[in-house]
Amino acid sequence: MLDDRAHDTLFRNARTHNGWLAKPVADDQLRAIYDLMKWGPTSVNSSPARLVFVRTQEGKEKLRPALSPGNVDKTMSAPVTVIVAYDTRFYEHLPRLFPHNQAAMGLFSGPDKMPFAQATAFRNGSLQGAYLIVAARMLGLDIGAMSGFDNANVDKAFFPDGRFKSNFLCNIGYGDPAKLFNRSPRLSFEEACTIA
Amino acid sequence: MLDDRAHDTLFRNARTHNGWLAKPVADDQLRAIYDLMKWGPTSVNSSPARLVFVRTQEGKEKLRPALSPGNVDKTMSAPVTVIVAYDTRFYEHLPRLFPHNQAAMGLFSGPDKMPFAQATAFRNGSLQGAYLIVAARMLGLDIGAMSGFDNANVDKAFFPDGRFKSNFLCNIGYGDPAKLFNRSPRLSFEEACTIA
Repeated sequence: MLDDRAHDTLFRNARTHNGWLAKPVADDQLRAIYDLMKWGPTSVNSSPARLVFVRTQEGKEKLRPALSPGNVDKTMSAPVTVIVAYDTRFYEHLPRLFPHNQAAMGLFSGPDKMPFAQATAFRNGSLQGAYLIVAARMLGLDIGAMSGFDNANVDKAFFPDGRFKSNFLCNIGYGDPAKLFNRSPRLSFEEACTIA
Repeated sequence: MLDDRAHDTLFRNARTHNGWLAKPVADDQLRAIYDLMKWGPTSVNSSPARLVFVRTQEGKEKLRPALSPGNVDKTMSAPVTVIVAYDTRFYEHLPRLFPHNQAAMGLFSGPDKMPFAQATAFRNGSLQGAYLIVAARMLGLDIGAMSGFDNANVDKAFFPDGRFKSNFLCNIGYGDPAKLFNRSPRLSFEEACTIA
């Protein structure tokens, strides 16, 4: 069981950031995020998430036209913006990733399995996006995740062969507490949960 | 920044469990899971996840016919099985959940917005499912998440009015280390990530 400090760092005091301090993020920190998040569970260890850590001026300019107006400034100024994407043909890796069952690939490959494969990639790629958020916070970084962008535009710019699809974006850096919004309320246990 | 013990507890040593020790999980622990996970970020604070913590014999029997054969024994013996679902009309709560922008509900309501609302609920409900997994582990519990079940069957049994949709299931308890599988490999940073 982890202590109150961990609860605060990952959930209770963690906030979505909109402004960034002038403090760089090193490539080694991005590798450290991946080396934690990769262990999070996914269906048949499918691990469909693919990440593009956009940190160069050139990369940021490729992203800019896809961003909703309200997301431009914070994204262009963030030390890193990660495109959380997923591999639509993730199942090709299953013979290695899920050695317990060499038939697992067959659950997903073929045109008739495409809707199931797509739902699996989207669900589990999203889980992995959440593991990324938690892992970054564990490493002392702040994040600001965003759905406000044109997915088709990002896919065309970064994944022209069509195999990977963007899911959401996430700015990574050291947040400026002066630019936080007031915290929004959450649903109560009684509103969101039942015990059956 | 959290220490090695936190990294191990949440990711590096955390495993998907298939067997459960005869050690109960209290309702207060389920509330504590929710009280952490609810703070995880979602798009416009949409918080679409809805949870049914199934712990009674009657509840488990409602779940049984929907389970894939390989998931029956571990689910019937788990102290709690949570149905991670999402609210297809999550946006009705946005005037309260996202007070910054009273127009946010309009992004999702109406028949023409249904595909966008559905994708938002599925993406963000999945993120919240991952927060649940992390929160349970923070509280010293073990989990075993599963997609191997018939969603339509679960929805009919637990959500007959059609508003909530099941996403995935997750057993919660104290795992039996003797019943773990060997750990499967993960993709390397170079296979899953690029820096642009």
